[in-house]
Amino acid sequence: MYSELNPTQRILMGPGPSDVAPTVLRSMATPLLGHLDPQFLGVMNDVMDMLRQVFQTENQLTIPMSGTGSAGMETVFVNLIEPGDKVVVGVKGLFGQRMVDVAKRCGAEVITVEAPWGRAIEPSQVKAALQQHPGVKLVALVHAETSTGVLQPLAEISQIVHEHEALLVVDAVTSLAGIEVGIDKIGIDACYSGTQKCLSAPPGLAPVTFNQKAAAVIANRKQLVQSWYLDLSMIQNYWGNERLYHHTAPITMNYALRETLRLILAEGLENVYARHWTLGGALQKGLEGMGLKLLVDKDIRLPELTAVTIPDYVDDATVRKQLLAQYGIEIGGGLGAFKGKVWRVGLMGYSCNQRNVVLFLSALESVLKTNGYQAPVGAGVAAAMENLQK
Amino acid sequence: MYSELNPTQRILMGPGPSDVAPTVLRSMATPLLGHLDPQFLGVMNDVMDMLRQVFQTENQLTIPMSGTGSAGMETVFVNLIEPGDKVVVGVKGLFGQRMVDVAKRCGAEVITVEAPWGRAIEPSQVKAALQQHPGVKLVALVHAETSTGVLQPLAEISQIVHEHEALLVVDAVTSLAGIEVGIDKIGIDACYSGTQKCLSAPPGLAPVTFNQKAAAVIANRKQLVQSWYLDLSMIQNYWGNERLYHHTAPITMNYALRETLRLILAEGLENVYARHWTLGGALQKGLEGMGLKLLVDKDIRLPELTAVTIPDYVDDATVRKQLLAQYGIEIGGGLGAFKGKVWRVGLMGYSCNQRNVVLFLSALESVLKTNGYQAPVGAGVAAAMENLQK
Repeated sequence: MYSELNPTQRILMGPGPSDVAPTVLRSMATPLLGHLDPQFLGVMNDVMDMLRQVFQTENQLTIPMSGTGSAGMETVFVNLIEPGDKVVVGVKGLFGQRMVDVAKRCGAEVITVEAPWGRAIEPSQVKAALQQHPGVKLVALVHAETSTGVLQPLAEISQIVHEHEALLVVDAVTSLAGIEVGIDKIGIDACYSGTQKCLSAPPGLAPVTFNQKAAAVIANRKQLVQSWYLDLSMIQNYWGNERLYHHTAPITMNYALRETLRLILAEGLENVYARHWTLGGALQKGLEGMGLKLLVDKDIRLPELTAVTIPDYVDDATVRKQLLAQYGIEIGGGLGAFKGKVWRVGLMGYSCNQRNVVLFLSALESVLKTNGYQAPVGAGVAAAMENLQK
Repeated sequence: MYSELNPTQRILMGPGPSDVAPTVLRSMATPLLGHLDPQFLGVMNDVMDMLRQVFQTENQLTIPMSGTGSAGMETVFVNLIEPGDKVVVGVKGLFGQRMVDVAKRCGAEVITVEAPWGRAIEPSQVKAALQQHPGVKLVALVHAETSTGVLQPLAEISQIVHEHEALLVVDAVTSLAGIEVGIDKIGIDACYSGTQKCLSAPPGLAPVTFNQKAAAVIANRKQLVQSWYLDLSMIQNYWGNERLYHHTAPITMNYALRETLRLILAEGLENVYARHWTLGGALQKGLEGMGLKLLVDKDIRLPELTAVTIPDYVDDATVRKQLLAQYGIEIGGGLGAFKGKVWRVGLMGYSCNQRNVVLFLSALESVLKTNGYQAPVGAGVAAAMENLQK
């Protein structure tokens, strides 16, 4: 009645998931170990150790939560917040809004600091909020806003947050292993990510990291964490030396995470970052070479996710459908106010390679042509290549 | 620095995860589709349709949640309970205790109905609790208690619960696709399971099902669900016709679930149940043939999970280590008060085959012999075979 799974091969250039390397795919066909098997405990150690390297941190409490990136967000908020706590959230896109929603469900008094979608939060805004609202427990910001492609600068804000004795919480779902997050260098107190973006494993795990200050906040809570499933006071005893059973860890997803971390570290973090910057920059030059406008200013533009303004008279969905049907290329549409206004083009992890840049620019040129937008022939690829040969 | 993953091949006969069939393992090496790809929406439809068949329900709201079985438990409680609601929970093992913990974190007033570990809850207990505490919103029971191997009869309790106009919530983590759950037949209003037991996919998804009455309770909530990640009022719009983005579904885990459901339905549910009953019964006869005592009385004993009393003077951990080292066989230890007192032997899903029954009984005999317990030579296998040839 149901046939064997045989989906069309895609090239994933949307806002995530990204393509997964063959050895990572293959690792998931490995027969299962039990979640308390000594060999699986070894896999867990490898994963924690390699996650620390990729987060660039010494934090002991660095583990993959058993859910997708949004479960990572919820993990940080449910564990750090108690009802009545004051929290400052930077909102400049959908994922900042989601933070507000999650924090409110934890009973937080949320103070928002806003920037228009496509812009970053200014340090002065955070400073003003902290001055107006004494006793703020944490400030939360999205490092790489997936709804717009904005890179949020963090260093100056980190200093302000710590001067006010608050914790800095960062959403690194779309930045980790694409651009430098630098937990210890920046002084980020708690951070979460997801596996399906620049880490290039399938969605299903959410790496989180907490420094000692944040871990102490959890240890000194007055109330139980409202989520049993995400309660780090118990989960850290499974990932720690005690190896106490909490829930059955997603064995296969941890195999995939281990393998993709291994590939990332073998390439070298600096090389991984350089690849994203170089190829993301080339893609952006190529899009501009085709006469298209980019949403975000160059100084705060992410390399791994580019929002392109859809030309007038061009239909969003038609173009995306044709790219998918004719080339197997997936890109993302806009979210919220940007629905129908922008495309979101990802170059993340394993998807971030020169072949994809050149193929995508050519494919987009051909598809746009049949949709009433005529880019100068070959201009996109030419501009991208020029950037690459610099 | 880190080598490729190459774990020793195990035979998983613990309380889960169970072994995963080769085609299910292979399905996870399939390149990813995006979570909004039309072809992935097809995979989602297949999964929902097949889950309904395995749950034996017509419930529209039947989906896999993006977490392990415990996330399924939390999903049911956070969505159905609002602070102050009265909830009756049957506690006869660890997973009943966990329900109490989760329900309390949702602000419920929890009334427990208890049976000693190894026994089932009596219908009269539930009736008495409902009579003593008017206005109970739901009664929650574990169908197959993984900490003891007890099968909780549900039909009579279902009638009592509904006479008192409460909802019946059932934990089917270790029963679904092993023994009949029969959502619609029994009148279960909400139910959750996990993929890593009799469904024989890796841990990582939690199938849940809610009937219209339970769905209406969610729709008529006064307060927001405390968990954003598990909020069905939003998630059902992703799995429903709207296909609205909520979080990025674990693509690969859904591939695995689709494939294992396909195998189960191809075998036929009745055949799957018969296989578990026949082979579980044979294993139990075999263990008794070796002179070992089973924890649970025959009338409420699960076929897919058997708790065996550890003979005096035999060391729990030594035996399990030797089974693992010499035979690659994993079984589970006891939990809570049963730690060091019982072994838990699983025969779930793909692990439930005659080869494993015979191998395990022989392996256990040989290991016990070196640990000071001398079973009559070959008596375990002989007793099991006798049962099989009936």
